[in-house]
Amino acid sequence: MATAMDQLGNPSSVHLEGRAVRATVERARGRVAEALGAGGGEIVFTSGATEAATLALAERNLKGAAVEHEAVAAWVGLELDADGAGRVAVPEPDRSTLQLANSETGVIQELPRGLAVSDATQAWGKLPVAFDRTGAEMALVSAHKLGGPKGVGALIMRRGCRLDPRIPGGGQEMGRRSGTENVIGIAGFAAAVEAAVRDLDAGVWEEVAKLRNILENGIAAGSHRTIFVGRDAPRLPNTSCFASPGWKGETQVMAMDLAGFAISSGSACSSGKVRESRVLRAMGYDGETARSAVRVSLGPSTTEENIGRFIDAWTMARNRVAGRAA
Amino acid sequence: MATAMDQLGNPSSVHLEGRAVRATVERARGRVAEALGAGGGEIVFTSGATEAATLALAERNLKGAAVEHEAVAAWVGLELDADGAGRVAVPEPDRSTLQLANSETGVIQELPRGLAVSDATQAWGKLPVAFDRTGAEMALVSAHKLGGPKGVGALIMRRGCRLDPRIPGGGQEMGRRSGTENVIGIAGFAAAVEAAVRDLDAGVWEEVAKLRNILENGIAAGSHRTIFVGRDAPRLPNTSCFASPGWKGETQVMAMDLAGFAISSGSACSSGKVRESRVLRAMGYDGETARSAVRVSLGPSTTEENIGRFIDAWTMARNRVAGRAA
Repeated sequence: MATAMDQLGNPSSVHLEGRAVRATVERARGRVAEALGAGGGEIVFTSGATEAATLALAERNLKGAAVEHEAVAAWVGLELDADGAGRVAVPEPDRSTLQLANSETGVIQELPRGLAVSDATQAWGKLPVAFDRTGAEMALVSAHKLGGPKGVGALIMRRGCRLDPRIPGGGQEMGRRSGTENVIGIAGFAAAVEAAVRDLDAGVWEEVAKLRNILENGIAAGSHRTIFVGRDAPRLPNTSCFASPGWKGETQVMAMDLAGFAISSGSACSSGKVRESRVLRAMGYDGETARSAVRVSLGPSTTEENIGRFIDAWTMARNRVAGRAA
Repeated sequence: MATAMDQLGNPSSVHLEGRAVRATVERARGRVAEALGAGGGEIVFTSGATEAATLALAERNLKGAAVEHEAVAAWVGLELDADGAGRVAVPEPDRSTLQLANSETGVIQELPRGLAVSDATQAWGKLPVAFDRTGAEMALVSAHKLGGPKGVGALIMRRGCRLDPRIPGGGQEMGRRSGTENVIGIAGFAAAVEAAVRDLDAGVWEEVAKLRNILENGIAAGSHRTIFVGRDAPRLPNTSCFASPGWKGETQVMAMDLAGFAISSGSACSSGKVRESRVLRAMGYDGETARSAVRVSLGPSTTEENIGRFIDAWTMARNRVAGRAA
């Protein structure tokens, strides 16, 4: 990104400076394709997975489940059902969209062959998934979920797919998405995705999964009524979603924030908005349970000591609340 | 931007890290509004002026002139006429869009009161224009035209204007444009716009205009048939567009590239595409003249010595071509 910051040209200019910036963008495109196993696909850089979702889904009337992210759910008929473990059955893959993993619960879906669109934003970098082997026509990815900068992502599409541009103009990205490219962000995206794949290959997420399990066992020991959402399904290694009916998720977020831990209730979307988790409701949980859910995300830098302190802080806060209620 | 690179949180998360990133974004929003004289407006951050154009113009059937940038022209009925100097008359401002300055010729428009949308991308930072005083309902701006990073910009709108979101999802930017914000780019945008305003106030562009005039006098002395486009209208200080009928613009770009100068023919848009300037055609020039036009952009770091070398290199190339033709 630092190198790209010093490149002043416009990637669409034909002079020397322009060609140097074009080379940065095209090298990044190749690196992203290689790292995500998308050699048989095309990478269309966007301002993030949300814009990629609009590009892939707008005005196509595809079907989806209510566990999808809001950026996807905004465009699809929410006709598909999720079971209690969060798994979604897809009778018509070519007319449907299905996430690869859920952002709130970490639940992983098995993608049916011939799926029209998959939101793989949450899964890439945490699971060894090659786009070319998913059988999906299109997939969405976001750089910041891979440790890269915020505000850049891509739509990956099988070569030859039709795509109606949503932002016309100068005709960048082969006419699929106009606007001068976010060169610094794209360079960071490529570096991040390569680092993410290296980490994945090195097994760092297996260690994270162990810590996640220690966390959940510790939380369960402190409060037997805690519900671990999606624990019966394959899940991402870094996500734990648990509900404590009667104790609002947002209250837990504030309590843990004071203790120095950044956790979430629902998904982190428009500023400060907190409401019950649509994902948990779609899995059949009642409103009170959904409102009491929090999501803890772990990373490669999380330590067992962090987990121990988290369990202590959470359990202490939990006991305070239970004491008041009694 | 370097500070923003170290901020790992999601600006929509309510925990401490999230709030720190939110503060970066909101501070930048205030700085951009202040620097662009848009205290009475709202700033909606986008991936650039092209996306801002889509947000402002899509499905509104506004009228415009063929001198508009492609990102604007894609959405409007090109019913308004430009005169030979590039000036556009706007009979129905509330149903029209008009650029503040042209990217190829630098020609500046006088904005009528009550204009629906103005593409001010090319003008801001070069002209002392306050959004609040333009009388326009909406304006487009791009960070990289102000010396900032590529891939970030904004739609500025008068408070209370209606705006239909084009990218739904998490509801960021007050529901007007979803997607996690390009925090690094937004931070760079704010820094760039403040630096641009400081430069403008310090008079650096008056010096640039003097150099531009030296350039044009030198080019004219070397080739009496050269046409300086828009010279009869108020122009941006940094832009010179001149046509040499019979000598293709793209050939001039290549000749000057070899001599170490980055100039353009037409506007820098989709990669490597070169065709006759739509802008010059709209001003009434014939196809041969339009195809022979080049654009030279100067900046605060351009020196008189650079200009001298440019004039020599261009004149020498011109004489070679003229010699071959003779």
